[in-house]
Amino acid sequence: MINVGIVGGTGYTGVELLRLLAQHPEVNIQTITSRSEAGIDVAEIFTNLRGHINLKFSDPAESKLDTCDVVFFATPNGIAMQETEVLINAGVKVIDLAADFRIKNIAEWEKWYGMQHACPDLVAEAVYGLPEINRTQITTARLIANPGCYPTAVQLGFLPLIESGIVDMEHLIADVKSGVSGAGRKAEVHTLHAEASDNFKAYGVPGHRHLPEIKQGLSNVAGKPVGLTFVPHLVPMIRGIHATLYAKLTKDIDLQTLYEKRYADEAFVDVLPSGKHPETRSVRGSNLCRIAVHQPQNSDTAVILSVTDNLVKGAAGQAIQNMNLMFNLPETMGINQVPLLP
Amino acid sequence: MINVGIVGGTGYTGVELLRLLAQHPEVNIQTITSRSEAGIDVAEIFTNLRGHINLKFSDPAESKLDTCDVVFFATPNGIAMQETEVLINAGVKVIDLAADFRIKNIAEWEKWYGMQHACPDLVAEAVYGLPEINRTQITTARLIANPGCYPTAVQLGFLPLIESGIVDMEHLIADVKSGVSGAGRKAEVHTLHAEASDNFKAYGVPGHRHLPEIKQGLSNVAGKPVGLTFVPHLVPMIRGIHATLYAKLTKDIDLQTLYEKRYADEAFVDVLPSGKHPETRSVRGSNLCRIAVHQPQNSDTAVILSVTDNLVKGAAGQAIQNMNLMFNLPETMGINQVPLLP
Amino acid sequence: MINVGIVGGTGYTGVELLRLLAQHPEVNIQTITSRSEAGIDVAEIFTNLRGHINLKFSDPAESKLDTCDVVFFATPNGIAMQETEVLINAGVKVIDLAADFRIKNIAEWEKWYGMQHACPDLVAEAVYGLPEINRTQITTARLIANPGCYPTAVQLGFLPLIESGIVDMEHLIADVKSGVSGAGRKAEVHTLHAEASDNFKAYGVPGHRHLPEIKQGLSNVAGKPVGLTFVPHLVPMIRGIHATLYAKLTKDIDLQTLYEKRYADEAFVDVLPSGKHPETRSVRGSNLCRIAVHQPQNSDTAVILSVTDNLVKGAAGQAIQNMNLMFNLPETMGINQVPLLP
Amino acid sequence: MINVGIVGGTGYTGVELLRLLAQHPEVNIQTITSRSEAGIDVAEIFTNLRGHINLKFSDPAESKLDTCDVVFFATPNGIAMQETEVLINAGVKVIDLAADFRIKNIAEWEKWYGMQHACPDLVAEAVYGLPEINRTQITTARLIANPGCYPTAVQLGFLPLIESGIVDMEHLIADVKSGVSGAGRKAEVHTLHAEASDNFKAYGVPGHRHLPEIKQGLSNVAGKPVGLTFVPHLVPMIRGIHATLYAKLTKDIDLQTLYEKRYADEAFVDVLPSGKHPETRSVRGSNLCRIAVHQPQNSDTAVILSVTDNLVKGAAGQAIQNMNLMFNLPETMGINQVPLLP
Repeated sequence: MINVGIVGGTGYTGVELLRLLAQHPEVNIQTITSRSEAGIDVAEIFTNLRGHINLKFSDPAESKLDTCDVVFFATPNGIAMQETEVLINAGVKVIDLAADFRIKNIAEWEKWYGMQHACPDLVAEAVYGLPEINRTQITTARLIANPGCYPTAVQLGFLPLIESGIVDMEHLIADVKSGVSGAGRKAEVHTLHAEASDNFKAYGVPGHRHLPEIKQGLSNVAGKPVGLTFVPHLVPMIRGIHATLYAKLTKDIDLQTLYEKRYADEAFVDVLPSGKHPETRSVRGSNLCRIAVHQPQNSDTAVILSVTDNLVKGAAGQAIQNMNLMFNLPETMGINQVPLLP
Repeated sequence: MINVGIVGGTGYTGVELLRLLAQHPEVNIQTITSRSEAGIDVAEIFTNLRGHINLKFSDPAESKLDTCDVVFFATPNGIAMQETEVLINAGVKVIDLAADFRIKNIAEWEKWYGMQHACPDLVAEAVYGLPEINRTQITTARLIANPGCYPTAVQLGFLPLIESGIVDMEHLIADVKSGVSGAGRKAEVHTLHAEASDNFKAYGVPGHRHLPEIKQGLSNVAGKPVGLTFVPHLVPMIRGIHATLYAKLTKDIDLQTLYEKRYADEAFVDVLPSGKHPETRSVRGSNLCRIAVHQPQNSDTAVILSVTDNLVKGAAGQAIQNMNLMFNLPETMGINQVPLLP
Repeated sequence: MINVGIVGGTGYTGVELLRLLAQHPEVNIQTITSRSEAGIDVAEIFTNLRGHINLKFSDPAESKLDTCDVVFFATPNGIAMQETEVLINAGVKVIDLAADFRIKNIAEWEKWYGMQHACPDLVAEAVYGLPEINRTQITTARLIANPGCYPTAVQLGFLPLIESGIVDMEHLIADVKSGVSGAGRKAEVHTLHAEASDNFKAYGVPGHRHLPEIKQGLSNVAGKPVGLTFVPHLVPMIRGIHATLYAKLTKDIDLQTLYEKRYADEAFVDVLPSGKHPETRSVRGSNLCRIAVHQPQNSDTAVILSVTDNLVKGAAGQAIQNMNLMFNLPETMGINQVPLLP
Repeated sequence: MINVGIVGGTGYTGVELLRLLAQHPEVNIQTITSRSEAGIDVAEIFTNLRGHINLKFSDPAESKLDTCDVVFFATPNGIAMQETEVLINAGVKVIDLAADFRIKNIAEWEKWYGMQHACPDLVAEAVYGLPEINRTQITTARLIANPGCYPTAVQLGFLPLIESGIVDMEHLIADVKSGVSGAGRKAEVHTLHAEASDNFKAYGVPGHRHLPEIKQGLSNVAGKPVGLTFVPHLVPMIRGIHATLYAKLTKDIDLQTLYEKRYADEAFVDVLPSGKHPETRSVRGSNLCRIAVHQPQNSDTAVILSVTDNLVKGAAGQAIQNMNLMFNLPETMGINQVPLLP
């Protein structure tokens, strides 16, 4: 059994880690910390866990995280970078679900996240935890930078086009839509039900923190800098990301076959039959990314549709997928739930 | 392995049976029938099942249901009563998720359901599949009348009050609210998103088919006829039932203790601590019924709050719970999922 | 033209006052105050008002409220009672949309609202602004206690039963459901879209501040104290209240006729034809209360269904209705919008 | 007073016409027809209209439409083209809210709409009713082809870019999102609340009927054929369209100024200040189109955000705007409501 610690368990990625780990056959949840809720039953805050998780939030100071095999950070940005070094030196593997280790260019990170980085060396060591690209490095990593929710859906959608070099890489467009749980479990006016429900809007068009993360990932694959316009939108639903991706084709190729081949061996990427449209609920509560490939009206514009559950493949599920790889377990163990529909 | 057949698999109880049975370790789904969709991949209709269920809908005429160990009817009312006798005579156990075998009084059934009953003898034999009341009879039954969604939440909520005889049984009130999936996957104007969303209404106040079912169940427990006012409402959510139950107390008793004792050994009934309010999402996707007990302002009115997922404990999950009992499997096998929140 | 001031305009009752007053032919909105947003364009916060309201929030200290003809307080509880006396002495009429002047019994008010009252004398003078009961007193009032959202829907629903003395007044039950805008425009976790959407729950069952307000109103009408069980619920919709009211009949009477007669001359109370069920969207954005009357299965339990828009008839619309009465304008002026459906 | 007839009043554009016309000071609604609901009170179907519209649906055969001043067709495609000629010859002005007269190329129309056109001559005469482009022709028109909902939001968004000739017109992209009322008040499974709620998907990516309409409109303005990729999506909300438009800039120009100047005199087009993001609820129930202009990260890609209420500016409101122009009334008469928020 793997002894697991979770730091910062009161957000949506925290409860989702608990939901999934409670059903994982090789995991023992040893501790979950929360400064604000220390001493409170986890199931008091997350009522779905009553009868499944019998733990209290513990004070971080007393939580003995260094006796865990792996620690997940489900904290706001800027926390994990303070605490990771000690854990790694104690032989604990670390998976950070926040953004602290995602951007290799420290100056770029500091610009977008507005703080000084505490441990640039670990950024260099950290492996970006997108198994469909970095599976081998993940298996031996000590520290995983778990990808953001938008970047997961967008990169998996663009990947075959970029790898095969058949599109204009200067003018990629990602029009992406997210459910409101992506904004986290923070009390804010703009994500109140009375504000976000029966409404739709774009936000962050001038610039969003996931832009440099996606560009870094796609540029690595392309072998050169890519140009990307990234427009996120807020959808009045709880979970789900839908990326609608546009790229100008520079070669004539069978896109459907390209995608099916690329993802033939991937357990969590499902390429739909030609002509279909994935819906976010088809992956609700699951670690799947479903993708459809279109070339409307036979023009030279490829349209890729990519959907995930932002809390699973976009956060907690992918983190556990990474854990499975790091501990040499079957990659799908504990995260193979059937999506919930309707 | 138990060989399972499902008749009428294109509704919400059908897809929910498939979602749960796909994860059941002792079940082989042998066939699922649909007259209208015969030959179509199940996962073409229910996109969540892609990769989990690799079956086509089969024509009922060619589906060899008599070679199954158990057949679930997830059909409209009036179908199961036509086909059950042949199956039972062939040694197949039958679980009807519709209403054909729920009401013992045939005249009453025919009044509410507007058709002549095809097999009154089987109605007499059928066991009403509410395990918290009829567990013993279920284990040996050949035919189960799986309870309705409202009746499950309401009966589990009222049960301890009725059994203990401490309320005015002439004036029970059940104010019940359901998500729209309770209306089924039928194309109807009043359950369109543009009609049912951002809206709330009562319906069926003059009379609803679940009224006689609930009255029968409670009267059986009371040992005499009960008086019940039952008012259903439509909530703009997908899944979930919330029953708010009112009864006038005739004795002074500790209600919290009464409920905790009654359900101490029930895996799927969770009595919340005193003062709490259950929310429907705390049981979303699970077979749980969560109950809270109140006596506001120390008046003589008890207020019981009871929530379920109408498609699980109110339909498919309870049907599998019954199957587990009938086949001597652990009662929770395959239906112990953690609810999905948020 | 009536010069209007609004104190505390950044909540939902504030924006709703602005939406309605902007269309009122006899109103000039002179000032709207907000301590936190002073200097900001109103339409910057409430994007619907762009092009309709060309005002900035002003600092309360500089807003010269005493030069207005009438001031609406759309503030949290406890503010209006600090500022009303000065205004009234300056000859300004005051309409408080909060609870400061609703409860005549000061000790009771202080128990439920957890603070000391600043001006008990004005409580005695204040007129409870439910025109269907207190129209005459409203026309000459200097100070209006505008009713709460739940109390409006519940009192209008029960009124004919209480006035005619045909029900057991010891055991009234109000099972009431509200959209989330009723909780206000405050950043709180439990009203986030990801928390409140696709979910349903009761809250405040042990006791809710609207309980004493409703009991006071009904007891006044009954001429003796009434017994009421009041259970509020949160509905995943933005606007709307649906009250489902239960009372035990002590006399045989034609309820439909009773209600139609009682409200025949009321512009904002609509009694539906027999057998109907009102839906909240049928009053969305309007000052209407629609009511249906049932006596299911000919039992001795009356079931009354009463719906309002909590922000209009339950708050801003009713406040303007009161203003119209106080200034001798046609009662429906400026608040006769057609509800928005779908 | 203008005597108005409405053909086919049981859909969402029908009820919206009624809501708006009921408040129009120069309109008398003479008749509203419905084959299926003839003899039924309009307010029985559309409960919001109770007390505002006191009409019954009439049988089309007996409705004397030729005595009206103007007739609105709120019918499915293919009806208006059968009945328009007679009306026009009788001197009645006609406004078709369906697609019968929108596409000038008859072969193209017949390909997309799958039927033979009944009156190509009238197509040639019909004026495309987008006032911001065709105001002058509308004032003298006998027959108006009222634009589709998507085409309105997309054309108003692209218009200044196309008119000024500063973008690559071969590779325009319109990523557009619509609330479900856009699908109409038809009983269909995919728009049920339990299907469309808490879900997001694209549809019609290979081809959608609004594609040729938008291309025709933009090509007319450009003076040459444009290339457009058009991807519609279904949003779990009732009303609202959000168009996110992408175009590659070929010249350096101040986009904000361009848009502000172009729409300075338009009552129903609101260009937001620089850096803003319009939300659909900011136009809910109103005839406004709000637009924001972005050029993210100073790249050569312009991103235009354009929102409308699909039932108002995208249908009924624009139809009345056209009527006002045709009858020489102030353009905003009766359609200047403040949007409903929250």
